[in-house]
Parts: sequence; structure tokens; C-alpha cells
Amino acid sequence: MPQGCLTLLSDFGLSDSYVGMMKGTIAQINPMLTVIDLTHQIPPQNIAAGRFCLMSAYPYFPKATVHVAVIDPGVGSTRRAIAVELATGFLVGPDNGLLSGVLSQTPAIAAVELTNPEYWRVANPSSTFHGRDIFAPVGAHLASGVPLTALGTTISSQQLVSLTLPECQEVIAPATGTGVIHGAIQAIDHFGNLITNIPESLLRGRLWSIAVGAIRISSQPTYAAVPAGTLLALVGSHGWVEIAENQGNAQKRLQVEYAEKVEVFLESCINSE
Amino acid sequence: MPQGCLTLLSDFGLSDSYVGMMKGTIAQINPMLTVIDLTHQIPPQNIAAGRFCLMSAYPYFPKATVHVAVIDPGVGSTRRAIAVELATGFLVGPDNGLLSGVLSQTPAIAAVELTNPEYWRVANPSSTFHGRDIFAPVGAHLASGVPLTALGTTISSQQLVSLTLPECQEVIAPATGTGVIHGAIQAIDHFGNLITNIPESLLRGRLWSIAVGAIRISSQPTYAAVPAGTLLALVGSHGWVEIAENQGNAQKRLQVEYAEKVEVFLESCINSE
Amino acid sequence: MPQGCLTLLSDFGLSDSYVGMMKGTIAQINPMLTVIDLTHQIPPQNIAAGRFCLMSAYPYFPKATVHVAVIDPGVGSTRRAIAVELATGFLVGPDNGLLSGVLSQTPAIAAVELTNPEYWRVANPSSTFHGRDIFAPVGAHLASGVPLTALGTTISSQQLVSLTLPECQEVIAPATGTGVIHGAIQAIDHFGNLITNIPESLLRGRLWSIAVGAIRISSQPTYAAVPAGTLLALVGSHGWVEIAENQGNAQKRLQVEYAEKVEVFLESCINSE
Repeated sequence: MPQGCLTLLSDFGLSDSYVGMMKGTIAQINPMLTVIDLTHQIPPQNIAAGRFCLMSAYPYFPKATVHVAVIDPGVGSTRRAIAVELATGFLVGPDNGLLSGVLSQTPAIAAVELTNPEYWRVANPSSTFHGRDIFAPVGAHLASGVPLTALGTTISSQQLVSLTLPECQEVIAPATGTGVIHGAIQAIDHFGNLITNIPESLLRGRLWSIAVGAIRISSQPTYAAVPAGTLLALVGSHGWVEIAENQGNAQKRLQVEYAEKVEVFLESCINSE
Repeated sequence: MPQGCLTLLSDFGLSDSYVGMMKGTIAQINPMLTVIDLTHQIPPQNIAAGRFCLMSAYPYFPKATVHVAVIDPGVGSTRRAIAVELATGFLVGPDNGLLSGVLSQTPAIAAVELTNPEYWRVANPSSTFHGRDIFAPVGAHLASGVPLTALGTTISSQQLVSLTLPECQEVIAPATGTGVIHGAIQAIDHFGNLITNIPESLLRGRLWSIAVGAIRISSQPTYAAVPAGTLLALVGSHGWVEIAENQGNAQKRLQVEYAEKVEVFLESCINSE
Repeated sequence: MPQGCLTLLSDFGLSDSYVGMMKGTIAQINPMLTVIDLTHQIPPQNIAAGRFCLMSAYPYFPKATVHVAVIDPGVGSTRRAIAVELATGFLVGPDNGLLSGVLSQTPAIAAVELTNPEYWRVANPSSTFHGRDIFAPVGAHLASGVPLTALGTTISSQQLVSLTLPECQEVIAPATGTGVIHGAIQAIDHFGNLITNIPESLLRGRLWSIAVGAIRISSQPTYAAVPAGTLLALVGSHGWVEIAENQGNAQKRLQVEYAEKVEVFLESCINSE
């Protein structure tokens, strides 16, 4: 049996046996696969949260890893079940925007609609649990070497559903390089850190601070650079501008939710190096 | 070292190291086993919930998989520790009804009381943690090829403890096939879906609806067949009649608990196909 | 690729993809490793809770297992990143006391500061996520056979940071063996069991009871030795004196927190055996 790596992401939680059923289905197809949970605790049916999580984790996996993601409020409707091939891996899941974060950063090479029941668990899948009956078995076959095109009908990778997030916009003075970047909170993690959609590259190596509502927060190199209980901003391990409270919970402190607007202020350079 | 598949189910939660200790114990015996968590978040000492979860997951695993289940409020008392062989797998756990769901669907071939300390972690096990000291190591040995009969004294598989759930009863008019099925909620999942003990087979392919308390709910083919926020009934991926709210939480909406009674109404056939 | 066993402990929770990123990083280095989660639900930045969990789980793992532990409020500050070799395994994590529980029971053979970026994920690690960029990859290399001394500069294993817990003290009458042991709650588990820092060895095989606040609780051989809802004390599966409520939650009942003082009373022997 070939060895390969497969990840799972869902909103199934860990208190029922749904995740176990997917893993049993995978083990029936190929028990030699390395199966890694990204998370199963995406808030129920929150496609945006699942999209961010998958996009964040994708770069850290071995080449050819198959990522099976199931946040699927449209299961049983006409939404398409798809698999996508990238230069560095594969995605399997519903075509509802969940996969669109990874695809915004890494282009698709090819895509198929999962129309070939030969690679499903059963030819007559449950209308409510495609994770177990379609996505997990298709992922297991892909990770075992089945070619993408065997899984179904080729579709255009340019016409997959994309999830519209608030985009960040810059107003920068060309002469000085100072200005404002308008963005939004795109995710909130387990620690209560507020992750914006402003990437490090837009900071241009300048001094900066961030405003959320009426609060202005200074940037710092690390959490530990400020006393416990102090708010700070930094570029998080995701590569996005993030608001945190050292040894505290910025979300509880600021009562900020998903999609809340933020502004980053780029200041004049002090160090020219 | 032989390769095999072993699952774990418990009420130990994931915030302590109890599950890690069981997995370490298993790795000491055979690091080549594929170990899959069904769940460790069964509500503490809720044998009925564990029984449903194990019964639901069992059919999805490879032949000869060993299922170790530990919901064990009687640990250290006189309840028996047992292992059971079925045509399609093995069960290991306390004889308190936890295993009786699987056994109601798949007959036992043989059963033993775990009296042979040679296959325990230590000859003098903890009086409070048989999961680590007896069930996990016995499961690891079974999954590595040790025969059932080596594990202890053969006992009658007809006299294992069975958990009495409310049974569903039918009142059907033979002439028309219409009538009522009286059942109950046997499980509530992470999404708040209410899973009854009424199997799909009793629906006889007829149109049907369900009543819980004063609420009457129509059956639908899929969650997505009704608008968000609408209650529906369907046959869930478990194969049982289930009450759900599309993109919502039926339990919160209906405030229904385990063992609450429900009635399914079978109506006259419209499509004879 | 060599096979080995690696455990992970953190306060990252399971709802974000941080744990998945660490596992992806490990799989990139060596997909053949057996990776076992101790827990990722240590309360955020609670070094004492992580220390207890790691100390409790350590003895149950195969020889040469690498334990990667990341409770790291000082990430990005001057706290050292270290790896420690013991006769029975390896520890990798921040030098903040997290590893000091294991080291109080099993002496270190050698220790290094993780100064060699050749074994990091990237030479320029994130200032906020050493778990992914330093600890996980270093652990994966160690578990794959890289010698400890290759990982960085040798340091004194006698001068690692140790976490000061309340120590237990005995006042025993030499003539009778009766007396009092003063201790404290060092951990509270998922079931609400209150785990003291009083080891079984101090009980000397005598009859005993325990007091917490104004409540006096009798010792019992098992949870099931008293009716449901009754408080009891026993030596838990950890080997420490523990206060529990049979089929209940002692913490909720007693409203006791970490570090609360307790007293064990040793009584005269009844059985001389």
C-alpha cells in the first residue's frame, strides 16, 4: 500500500463519532496513510472560518498532501463536490468557497467534479454526510495515487466558488510612504488574538500602529515585549497583522467580532536600514 | 510487528493526559498499530451515549479492528472487564452495557472475562484506571494477533449486560400501511440534531412526518431542502430518523432531552414506485 | 526513514490550525514518526498545569520517545529553548519550568540550548510560534536519530528553570507513626477530581483521611466504594492522593482551586499485615 499524507478539517466537533467514521472509511481504503487533523472545531457551518484555517495550515504540509475539508451547509443540494490539484498538494471538499483561501495563494492546476462513484464509499451516498461517503474516500484514493482525472468530470478551476472577504485598501502618500491601510478582522483564534486581512508585505518595513474602533494600539516585536495585560499589535505567525493582549484575551477585552474594520497607520521610517 | 487498527472511545476528555497515557501504553506494546479516536468527549459516565456512539461508528472500520471503549463508572467494583469477538471485529471494555449497542446489531462469536494479567500493563492495576492498565493493553495485544481465548476465562456472550433503551413500537393498519411508530430520542449530536431510535426500515418507503411534544415536523430529503432556520425530519447518516434545523440547532430550539418520546406518522403512499 | 515516537503537549487548543501546522512540519521531516497528542487543552499559559500533565504521562511511553511541550508565554523573549536527554526519553520545550516536573522524578543526562538553526523549520523563525518553527522540527529530528549535541550548545542540566510548587510537609510522631501531612492541590482534572501533591509513599500503608477547608473526607479503595454523590479520597491512578466525588464533580462541590491547602491525617494501624 502506498504511503501518503491526508489532512481533515470540519465542523463536526469531537464529541460525536463523525470524525471517527471518516477515519474508519479512510483506513478501509488505505491503512498506511498518515491522517492529520487540522481541526474539527470550526464553528458549525462557518465557511469563512474554515477557509482561513485551511489557507493558514496549507503551506506547512509535505508536497502531495491531500487536504479534505468539510464545512458543508449545502450538503444534498446542488452545490458541487470537487477536488483540485495544485503544484504542492490536493484539495477535496464542497465547492462553496471553503477551498478558495488556499486557491487565492496557490493556483490550481486542474479541477474535477466528483462524479465517479467508483471512488465513493457507496454508490448511493447519504444525503447528509458526504464527508464520510464521498470526500474522505475520494481523499484516501487520491493520497494513494489515484489520478485526479479518474475522480470525475474536469471543470474549470477559474469558475470555482470564491468567498468574498472584505478586502484591504491602501491610501499611501507616494512621497513619504506614510498613510493608512484599511482592513478587517478575518479570524479570531483560540487565544482571542484578532487576525486581520492585512499581510506583512503591505507594512513595507515601516513603523506602524493599528486602530480598532476608538482604540489605538502600538506594534511590538513579540507578545513578551509589553507587560502582561497590555494590548499590542504584531505580525502573527500566520503572516498577517494581528492584535493580541500579552497573557490575556484581546477579543474579550475589545469585544471585536469577525469582519470588524481596522486601520493600520504607516509612519515615517526611523531606521533606514 | 504486525499492523492493525484499534479505536478508542472514552469519557476522559482531551484536557488531561489520560488518553495520552493509554496511547503510550499501546505504543509500548506495538508502535505499528493505527490508533483512531472515536471520541473522548462522551458526557462523564454516560453509558447510553457511549453505547450509541460505538454502535454508530462500528460498521465503518476495517475487518478485525479492535474497539476499546471505556465509560466505566463501576471501575474497581465487581463489574467484569471483557473482550468480545465478532465476525467483523473485536470489542474491549467494561461489561456494563456500553458494548451492547454493537452486539444488538452484530452477534458475538465468543467472549472472555479479562482475567489473564499477562496481557495487562501491570499485574497489579490501578483501581481507578482500567483504561490504561487493562483495556488499552489488552486491545493492543488483540490488535497484534493475540487470540481472544488467551486473554481470560471464556464466558457466555448471551449473558453480557445489556442497556435497556426505550424501544420503538408500531401501530400500523395492515390494510393501508398507515399508522404510528412510537419511539424516543436516543442521542443528540454536536449540531443539536435529535436522533431517534426509529430505523429507516420501519418507514417502509412511505411519506412520513414526526411529532415531538406539540410540534409536528415534515420529512425532507436533505437539510438544504428547507430554508435556514426551519425544522425538518429526515433519515440521518446513522440510518435513524432524525430531527434537525437547517443551519441551526434543533435541541436548543425544541429543548428536547435524551429519552424524550416521539411519534412518526406513516401516511398513504403517493408514489407507488 | 527511521520510526520513532513523539508526543505533543500545548495550550494551543484544537479549534485553530496551530497543532495541525506542527504536525505538518513534523511530517515534512519524517512522515514515519508516530505522533501522539498528550493534550492541547492546557489552560492558556498555565505552566504549572502543563508541568503536571507532562510529568504524569511521561512514564507510560516507550523508551526514547521525544516529548515536545509548548506552554510558552515568554516566546520571543530571552527565555531559552532547550532539549534534555534522560535515560528513558527526551524533552523539548521552553526553559520555563514546564519540563521540571519530569526532571524532578527522572534525572537529566544532558541538556542543550537550541541554538543550531539547521534543525529549525526556517533559519528566521516566527517570534510568536516557536512550537512550529523550532520545537516541533527539533523534536522530529531527535526522534529520527539526530544526536542531542547536534541541536545546540551544551548547558548545565542543574541550572534549568524549576517551577516552585507548594511542597508537602510531614509532622509524624515517631513512636506511633500517626500525624499530619500538609500538602496542596497541584492539579484538577476533567472529572473535577482534586489531585494533591502528596504521594502514596508518604501514607506508609496506614489508614488515613483528608481535610480541605472545614471538610473531612474518608479514604476509600475505589470510587465505587461509596454511593453516587459521595465525596471520597483515594490514591489516584497518578500515584497521588486525590479527592473525588463518585459519579460527580468534587471541584464543583467543594469550590476548591489550584494550590488550595489540604491535610492528610495518618491514623493508627488496624491491620498489621
